[in-house]
Amino acid sequence: MLKPGAISGFPEWLPAQRLKELEVLDTIRRVYELHGYASLETAAVERVEVLQTKGVEGKEIYALERLAAESGADKRELALHFDLTVPLARYVAQNYPQLSFPYKRYQIQKVWRGERPAQGRFREFYQADIDVISEDTLALHFDAEMAAIIAEIFQRLGIQVRIRINNRKVLLGFYRALGLEGEQVVSALREVDKLEKVGPEVVARTLGEQGLSPKQVERCLALAQVRGMDGCRDVTCGLNEAQLQEGLAELEFVAAQLAHLGQTLEVDLGIVRGLDYYTGSIYEAVLPDYPALGSVCSGGRYENLASEFIKRKLPGVGISIGVSRLLSYLFSKGGWNPTRSSPTEVLVVLPGEEHRGAANEIARQLRAANVPAEVFHEPSKLDKQIRYADRKEIPHVIFPYLWPAQVEVKALATGHQVTLGLQDWLTGREKVPA
Amino acid sequence: MLKPGAISGFPEWLPAQRLKELEVLDTIRRVYELHGYASLETAAVERVEVLQTKGVEGKEIYALERLAAESGADKRELALHFDLTVPLARYVAQNYPQLSFPYKRYQIQKVWRGERPAQGRFREFYQADIDVISEDTLALHFDAEMAAIIAEIFQRLGIQVRIRINNRKVLLGFYRALGLEGEQVVSALREVDKLEKVGPEVVARTLGEQGLSPKQVERCLALAQVRGMDGCRDVTCGLNEAQLQEGLAELEFVAAQLAHLGQTLEVDLGIVRGLDYYTGSIYEAVLPDYPALGSVCSGGRYENLASEFIKRKLPGVGISIGVSRLLSYLFSKGGWNPTRSSPTEVLVVLPGEEHRGAANEIARQLRAANVPAEVFHEPSKLDKQIRYADRKEIPHVIFPYLWPAQVEVKALATGHQVTLGLQDWLTGREKVPA
Repeated sequence: MLKPGAISGFPEWLPAQRLKELEVLDTIRRVYELHGYASLETAAVERVEVLQTKGVEGKEIYALERLAAESGADKRELALHFDLTVPLARYVAQNYPQLSFPYKRYQIQKVWRGERPAQGRFREFYQADIDVISEDTLALHFDAEMAAIIAEIFQRLGIQVRIRINNRKVLLGFYRALGLEGEQVVSALREVDKLEKVGPEVVARTLGEQGLSPKQVERCLALAQVRGMDGCRDVTCGLNEAQLQEGLAELEFVAAQLAHLGQTLEVDLGIVRGLDYYTGSIYEAVLPDYPALGSVCSGGRYENLASEFIKRKLPGVGISIGVSRLLSYLFSKGGWNPTRSSPTEVLVVLPGEEHRGAANEIARQLRAANVPAEVFHEPSKLDKQIRYADRKEIPHVIFPYLWPAQVEVKALATGHQVTLGLQDWLTGREKVPA
Repeated sequence: MLKPGAISGFPEWLPAQRLKELEVLDTIRRVYELHGYASLETAAVERVEVLQTKGVEGKEIYALERLAAESGADKRELALHFDLTVPLARYVAQNYPQLSFPYKRYQIQKVWRGERPAQGRFREFYQADIDVISEDTLALHFDAEMAAIIAEIFQRLGIQVRIRINNRKVLLGFYRALGLEGEQVVSALREVDKLEKVGPEVVARTLGEQGLSPKQVERCLALAQVRGMDGCRDVTCGLNEAQLQEGLAELEFVAAQLAHLGQTLEVDLGIVRGLDYYTGSIYEAVLPDYPALGSVCSGGRYENLASEFIKRKLPGVGISIGVSRLLSYLFSKGGWNPTRSSPTEVLVVLPGEEHRGAANEIARQLRAANVPAEVFHEPSKLDKQIRYADRKEIPHVIFPYLWPAQVEVKALATGHQVTLGLQDWLTGREKVPA
């Protein structure tokens, strides 16, 4: 007999947790769709050469080989995708003539990485990505929309979120205005990105070793500690670099559009993100109640999505939510502690074979009114049937004795019981959902 | 530059087709949930030894190897699942103490098979499975429920379906009553299963070669041609075999429970299905309008789900819908020809920068009323904005000139335009959905 066990890094949920996961995925999807984004689902599998066009370093890829084939016969041509950005780029280039731009798409799928599993690092996990891709130029409208969408998702999930925004042009322009050039800018930013982790002293020392003057170091650190638009203007006052001014104007537009988000949004010149990819707005979101979780989603604006596949300039902006990490953390910290393991809202009791017709008809009418319902599967003692409903946390049981005139409805949590017409119960229920 | 292209056997849809796929998946999920089945999602990856416990012959498995690892280093221990039954068996055995039985679960996931792709045969495809697993015994109630669920799904999808049911005990008991034994029964059934494909003459000849008497051959063929309960009773009249009688009683119970389905359900003693697995009810569904598609779903009752993993008798009954095959066939035959490529129902026009506040607020109120809405992303000529809505088949555009007192709503399909308060439009819309 084979012992069935979990495979490290491949999370699976119990029924109640899975119900919660579905609720989270549905909420994300709903908000994406309410903003006019269309679902995309790409195959889980890409050509290895496609995956290797971007960011493959450090990301272990799972290649496929048919088990029945001789080792090496499949030449490892196909592999599982490790993110949803490379598949998007390939899909847009491949279907370019059939897509209508700006192409607004969301993509909620699993991705796979052959990394060593650890706390919060999985080999198979859900990402929920949203991107808009345009031709040649992309309106700044979308940079604001991305942050608004994230704010709405977490509001609907009932979780406080802090969304930090920055603009890559501000960083690059500022560093250039200080006299830094080319590779120097990139290495300096890479150091400043470690600020929260290692503290200002370590960063200052390393920047000094990279050849920055004390004055330059001081101003770089000052920039990284700026929060809010006012601080932005103060710290950059007198610097006339064109890219810096452009970045400030973009940041200001986005912040103004999102002013209604209040505390949820923070201009934060300390966030840096992936250096070789983003070119304008950058985002990162954290949960104030769960600081140790780190960033729950991130993203930004990029110049050109698919330059490896097509000779068109396709700028975009997007954000990715790490759903599995979020769920696993909140489950483990008790932030979410779901207990209902069934979608059923009503169990129709089956006291005896003679009630089967009535019970079936009651369940049919409940389902027609969009209420998940099941008939207990065999005539048996009432307490056995109630125990079943209790175990699955089914909120109501209905007894069919008085059918068709009336039904007896019992709420299991309170023990409260009423006798009334089924349609009357359904109508009252609509007004006060269970 | 890398040419992006489709990988044979890994289907991907254009945005409008994907919207249709989602609608189909949502419908299936909704009906499963309305009957009290809870979602399960297992990892896409299983241990190879787990996959090899069942039905692996003929199904090419995709094993995983980390691309960065040396060839053979991963020893092909992990592989993608090729169906959702083996993962269910492993999951139930693994989580047995935490599950509450009867465990009613549905599972809508992709599966992978390293087979040669062909018309309607994919390497990556969606299955939508539903099963109920019990301990020791499983009520016949569920055998009827499975067929009722399939009928309701296709009714909601607006597709005529014919569900054929049979009972394995009837077949085995009948053959035994004719004097056939052991392996002879299995080989004879395997031949009879080919009846529709090769015709009665060929089957009769092969059965004769297998040693069946002309009388036995005649009765086997007669049984396979029976449709309806009356025919069942006629053809088995006088045969007293216990298993046959048990099967007939089960079939009769299920047919009686499903009498309300009328033409949608057919008792069909000619269907056989997987010989080594099912032990009671068996199902198969076809679409009368698309006979060449063959079976769109199938399933049955089994004695013991997880005997390879756990020393418990866990009988079950389930059905699997081949979603990708169904979609691909209906897309290719014009049965479904979706054109809307966006979930957006209202485009709010942005005539100039000065209307941005009004446009944003209109869109916010629409979304709060659950209406997907987008603001055109930059001030530009009206005809450009309308063209964008036309291309994505967005049904309505709203002009913000009279905000906040009123809005002008234009239905693009008819050109019909009204001027009224936004909430009035939303209320009217609820009564007559677009």
